[in-house]
Amino acid sequence: MTDADRRQNALEALRSFGIELPSWAFGNSGTRFKVFAQPGVPRDPFEKISDAAQVHRYTGAAPRVSLHIPWDLVDDFGKLAAHAADEGVRIGAINSNVFQDDDYKLGSLTHADPRVRAKAVAHHLQCLDVMRATGSQDLKIWLPDGLNYPGQDDIRGRQDRLAESLQQIYAALDPEHRIILEYKIFEPHFYTMDIPDWGTSLLHCLALGPQAMVVLDTGHHAPSTNIEFIVAQLLRVGRLGAFDFNSRFYADDDLMVGSADPFQLFRIMYEIVRADALRPDSGVNFMLDQCHNIEEKIPAQIRSVTNVQEATAKALLVDRDALHEAQRRGDVLGANAVLMDAYNTDVRPLLAELREGLGLAPDPHAAYAASGYARRIATERLGGAQAGWGA
Amino acid sequence: MTDADRRQNALEALRSFGIELPSWAFGNSGTRFKVFAQPGVPRDPFEKISDAAQVHRYTGAAPRVSLHIPWDLVDDFGKLAAHAADEGVRIGAINSNVFQDDDYKLGSLTHADPRVRAKAVAHHLQCLDVMRATGSQDLKIWLPDGLNYPGQDDIRGRQDRLAESLQQIYAALDPEHRIILEYKIFEPHFYTMDIPDWGTSLLHCLALGPQAMVVLDTGHHAPSTNIEFIVAQLLRVGRLGAFDFNSRFYADDDLMVGSADPFQLFRIMYEIVRADALRPDSGVNFMLDQCHNIEEKIPAQIRSVTNVQEATAKALLVDRDALHEAQRRGDVLGANAVLMDAYNTDVRPLLAELREGLGLAPDPHAAYAASGYARRIATERLGGAQAGWGA
Amino acid sequence: MTDADRRQNALEALRSFGIELPSWAFGNSGTRFKVFAQPGVPRDPFEKISDAAQVHRYTGAAPRVSLHIPWDLVDDFGKLAAHAADEGVRIGAINSNVFQDDDYKLGSLTHADPRVRAKAVAHHLQCLDVMRATGSQDLKIWLPDGLNYPGQDDIRGRQDRLAESLQQIYAALDPEHRIILEYKIFEPHFYTMDIPDWGTSLLHCLALGPQAMVVLDTGHHAPSTNIEFIVAQLLRVGRLGAFDFNSRFYADDDLMVGSADPFQLFRIMYEIVRADALRPDSGVNFMLDQCHNIEEKIPAQIRSVTNVQEATAKALLVDRDALHEAQRRGDVLGANAVLMDAYNTDVRPLLAELREGLGLAPDPHAAYAASGYARRIATERLGGAQAGWGA
Amino acid sequence: MTDADRRQNALEALRSFGIELPSWAFGNSGTRFKVFAQPGVPRDPFEKISDAAQVHRYTGAAPRVSLHIPWDLVDDFGKLAAHAADEGVRIGAINSNVFQDDDYKLGSLTHADPRVRAKAVAHHLQCLDVMRATGSQDLKIWLPDGLNYPGQDDIRGRQDRLAESLQQIYAALDPEHRIILEYKIFEPHFYTMDIPDWGTSLLHCLALGPQAMVVLDTGHHAPSTNIEFIVAQLLRVGRLGAFDFNSRFYADDDLMVGSADPFQLFRIMYEIVRADALRPDSGVNFMLDQCHNIEEKIPAQIRSVTNVQEATAKALLVDRDALHEAQRRGDVLGANAVLMDAYNTDVRPLLAELREGLGLAPDPHAAYAASGYARRIATERLGGAQAGWGA
Repeated sequence: MTDADRRQNALEALRSFGIELPSWAFGNSGTRFKVFAQPGVPRDPFEKISDAAQVHRYTGAAPRVSLHIPWDLVDDFGKLAAHAADEGVRIGAINSNVFQDDDYKLGSLTHADPRVRAKAVAHHLQCLDVMRATGSQDLKIWLPDGLNYPGQDDIRGRQDRLAESLQQIYAALDPEHRIILEYKIFEPHFYTMDIPDWGTSLLHCLALGPQAMVVLDTGHHAPSTNIEFIVAQLLRVGRLGAFDFNSRFYADDDLMVGSADPFQLFRIMYEIVRADALRPDSGVNFMLDQCHNIEEKIPAQIRSVTNVQEATAKALLVDRDALHEAQRRGDVLGANAVLMDAYNTDVRPLLAELREGLGLAPDPHAAYAASGYARRIATERLGGAQAGWGA
Repeated sequence: MTDADRRQNALEALRSFGIELPSWAFGNSGTRFKVFAQPGVPRDPFEKISDAAQVHRYTGAAPRVSLHIPWDLVDDFGKLAAHAADEGVRIGAINSNVFQDDDYKLGSLTHADPRVRAKAVAHHLQCLDVMRATGSQDLKIWLPDGLNYPGQDDIRGRQDRLAESLQQIYAALDPEHRIILEYKIFEPHFYTMDIPDWGTSLLHCLALGPQAMVVLDTGHHAPSTNIEFIVAQLLRVGRLGAFDFNSRFYADDDLMVGSADPFQLFRIMYEIVRADALRPDSGVNFMLDQCHNIEEKIPAQIRSVTNVQEATAKALLVDRDALHEAQRRGDVLGANAVLMDAYNTDVRPLLAELREGLGLAPDPHAAYAASGYARRIATERLGGAQAGWGA
Repeated sequence: MTDADRRQNALEALRSFGIELPSWAFGNSGTRFKVFAQPGVPRDPFEKISDAAQVHRYTGAAPRVSLHIPWDLVDDFGKLAAHAADEGVRIGAINSNVFQDDDYKLGSLTHADPRVRAKAVAHHLQCLDVMRATGSQDLKIWLPDGLNYPGQDDIRGRQDRLAESLQQIYAALDPEHRIILEYKIFEPHFYTMDIPDWGTSLLHCLALGPQAMVVLDTGHHAPSTNIEFIVAQLLRVGRLGAFDFNSRFYADDDLMVGSADPFQLFRIMYEIVRADALRPDSGVNFMLDQCHNIEEKIPAQIRSVTNVQEATAKALLVDRDALHEAQRRGDVLGANAVLMDAYNTDVRPLLAELREGLGLAPDPHAAYAASGYARRIATERLGGAQAGWGA
Repeated sequence: MTDADRRQNALEALRSFGIELPSWAFGNSGTRFKVFAQPGVPRDPFEKISDAAQVHRYTGAAPRVSLHIPWDLVDDFGKLAAHAADEGVRIGAINSNVFQDDDYKLGSLTHADPRVRAKAVAHHLQCLDVMRATGSQDLKIWLPDGLNYPGQDDIRGRQDRLAESLQQIYAALDPEHRIILEYKIFEPHFYTMDIPDWGTSLLHCLALGPQAMVVLDTGHHAPSTNIEFIVAQLLRVGRLGAFDFNSRFYADDDLMVGSADPFQLFRIMYEIVRADALRPDSGVNFMLDQCHNIEEKIPAQIRSVTNVQEATAKALLVDRDALHEAQRRGDVLGANAVLMDAYNTDVRPLLAELREGLGLAPDPHAAYAASGYARRIATERLGGAQAGWGA
């Protein structure tokens, strides 16, 4: 395959590559120390979706919006879905929330008290109803459960309770539904989490059945973990359900994806390309999960989408025949050089061409900035309570 | 020296060893995900001090309380100091706060805007006034300033601004005042902090003068950092001003000191003992800085104090002559064994004896539990707003 | 159950608790910078076993010795087994070695070249023959394969080749044989290992069948990994085959077990006790895998065995009824306190009693030191080549 | 300044930017598990210099070679320097070695025994003689001293001994000499190193005087350390003496610089450019320190040089006026975007132009491959012992 062929293939693959945005990225967020408010922040799920739609408007690559329940609860989800359609996007995954109710202080699906576990299961069944009302197919479970102190609860007993709780939720899935189950090494608990690693998430998915898949959040690992290895492994066993993309230098920093280690993002996307998992029917949902604590939210989401696109474009440009041949003959430096050649390519012109082919401005950042949207929402969204992690 | 001599020396040293408690440990705290309220939580600085005094009442080892400004601002600090005295304790270090004002979103003492820097400096001068009103001698500065993204601001320029701002504060110190300057590797910012490590804190202290000292928070280091080495080094150059004690498994978890790695705490306290820095006039302020997100606050502070006491008692029991002799002859296993012998000793009887000598119950946990105080505050403290990180 | 009952149970459980020693711990080891020789180091497998037997002689708790092939290849394994029996110990696990042949520079079981893979498989079949000749039942595979550079080889392809190679070895097992498969996050390769984590090892074991189990080396994880969680999880799914015990502060430091974080070791052993996996027929092989680079080897192994015994004794002393009750009622501090009570107990008297019950000296360190063995081997083992990682 | 101006400035700056190569990179290296030999590896310091000169021949950017004593001891250093000159390079820093003599098992400059300390000091005086014989000005001290076990020796006492030993070496410096003092978090010792961090190295340099500077090895930090912050800080206080460049994913992996995190290397070089420290008289010695365990050594050094050049070129292309302006107005995303624009630029054409301006082939990798040198040395260097870490 020639360079030109690879470039055409990349353009084609990118045309159908969509990234899902989180509704909560448009609300206020912060650290335990402070949440800084921003002008124009949405006050309800409708406004969040309008903001998310701006990202799609200028990138052409963000056609879906994840919801977070109860933050995004509305009386009429049909109306919300219609609003999304009007704005040119649709509802994606439904995220449950079992970390903001006082009952969940010591756990939810793993809690020692059966009453609390039943309540947490019921919340997930409610989320399934939201999925039915919105056409969503993915129930995303990030389990905040864990322990702060050795001895606080029984590590193994909590696994057994978790398995039982998940089974109850799984049993209520419709045939087209999936549970996508996230893992995280720490936070909000600091001795152990109940799903701290991909192995634990996968074991539960395997026990549940084919409609359960693992979610890989790029910020949820121990320092120095090789994430692309996990991507490759989960793809190999057919259980990579979704990404939560973001960046980290230290912990679950939730910075813009690609901002901390763009080379890592490229390597991750290369494993996706290598497994032919970029195509829309691969079963991998490419989602963002980020907090824009100090930067403007809509531009930050645009930047995140373009960062993923750039990493993906580079991954698509890898000369895989040359790579394979160098690997086959044990040419360490040669194989590495093939990969680096693609990484070192400036793909911004390619992406500009992609956008122009879609009838979009070549520079989505400039186009959004010129649109006046930021000023308009800052002016119009007065009164009401800004959305945040509590709503 | 015989075992019995070492035991007597330990008892004597422990009698005058006091740990300072943070007023904010008695208010509500949590993660960015959720702050769980607890019954009986104080509603003002007076009630915080009353709670802190309970810890001293049952341990005899927690005679001071740090304040946090503006959380602990009161109209009449003389009255607050008198209340403390009535409760048997006194006011310790004054902590400034430059992380909860909207102006500080991008920095305080390091902010690019001179107006914001001036405001932050002025806040510290206000803290000096509180020190004058309360008899406090330590101005503790934990600087939340930092960056989330590469390029966001100029790393080096911020150091220059920081040096200038600190100089302005230092110039306003009374002769008996100290600045104690904390460092932290990350949080609330995730690309770099402006004082990320002990080297940076020390450089600023050296530039300021003899009244500036480093604060070592045991939770503020990169994974696998050897903390006792830093303790030894700062003691060696005469610049260890204080500890913020707590425990971590991952990040700045703020768990109870001694709960995650009691052997590390012992090694830290051994360096203190080895440098004869346990005595009250050593210039080292032994403070707690913890968050009791899910556990009861007063009992958690009692446990923290007893954990420090146990580690200290073990450090005092090290047979330093035997240790020195084994080290001198290069007996790796023998030297290690001397240290471990002290660590493996059950010092709870020794501490019971210490307490009985002070006229206290041997078991402070049981004594507090039996006191009925928890029930009383849960009943009496109705109405008003519970204290937390915002107040 | 009373304290006295727990103490009796602990004594009984400890009487049948045996730890397996690695033959290579008695040979020279070091870092890439330098291997420091020690006087009296064994020159062949017979002398290694004699040294290992000393550890058992004074602890009564180290009845088996693992071999490492080809380092411990001898002409007549029947003779070696007889020698072990004469010394009062027996042969334990057989460790394969695919990291010291030039052919394995870029991999062994995962190598791109089928010839190299076949050679590596054949080496394991040779190890099975050693097992048949020695009565060993565990084939321990620590796979050094991995990559130093992104792109160097195909991450996923290597998993497929690994699965195929392992299948060939598994097919050759006798009914009483097990493959025990180790994982390691890094070293000797630095971009990724082919079995970097417990999830990967477990996936291969599950694919192989019931005779494949995971080996957990306590030094093979990313910083801040909660190891006892993994222990609990692997026990829960019935796939914890063995430990390689050692200590680390940073990487795979291979220090004496219990020397870096004795509280962690206690928590690990508590999960073992909690799962009733201490008993000899539990299927968990408790092995040491350490390097005594600068300390004397036999005393270091004795110290390691006593460290494991102390942690285990404490774990056995946990008041599990009280713990369960505190956990059930959500008493965070109370539950933690129950665990800490056991940890803070000085179990050295209990272990002295255990040894005396076995007809041994109460202090194995002193007894070995007094035996004159160290002087004897230093004098007698002159000439020949000291054993090390190359032999 | 226009883009074209920045490009011209970059070309000019790069023309005088030289990277120093380590002689030992051309010898065999490996891990504690295995050193794999390679064909054509040098057998003496003369051949090492010839190989290093190849790197300069094709990059025009590697004019100096560091030596390692005693590995590079020769009878006649004048002859070695003349050989270097003949090959178009010259001798750079002299590295001492206090980690391969049996006397140094428990330390060298910090050893408890004054005799061993004196021996280690004498070795450094010998290195000063080599500097006088070769015209070298930098005495590089990487101190392998440290402890494996708590209690093994006195942490603080070792600092005092270190200060005294260094003072003796410093006193013997000629006016044009410098001590450049490296730090490292761990390895070859695993409990603590005696110079584990930049703060410790700097404290010793400050105590010694103006001819002592810090060496920053990019692989010698705890996980998640922000290295460019340290670079900026050391430049700010005028004490950054040199880099040891290499890459790491986990520990001191010693991979090719720029291969693990090219964005980090760019950020480091940006701080250099920002401080105007790229110019030859800045006092910063840009050195490589790497191990090519599995890849060909000369091509790996060429790749490393070009990786540093690419990162530097990008750093030089940053639009600093635009960056400063965005930083000044608190435009987080805008400032980050200015930095990323430079990083995302493909600078390979710029570097090809640089080389052509120097009369070199545009692609040094291809030019070296075409030269036949690799085949020649593989054929000619038969017999003799290949150089490695022991020689």
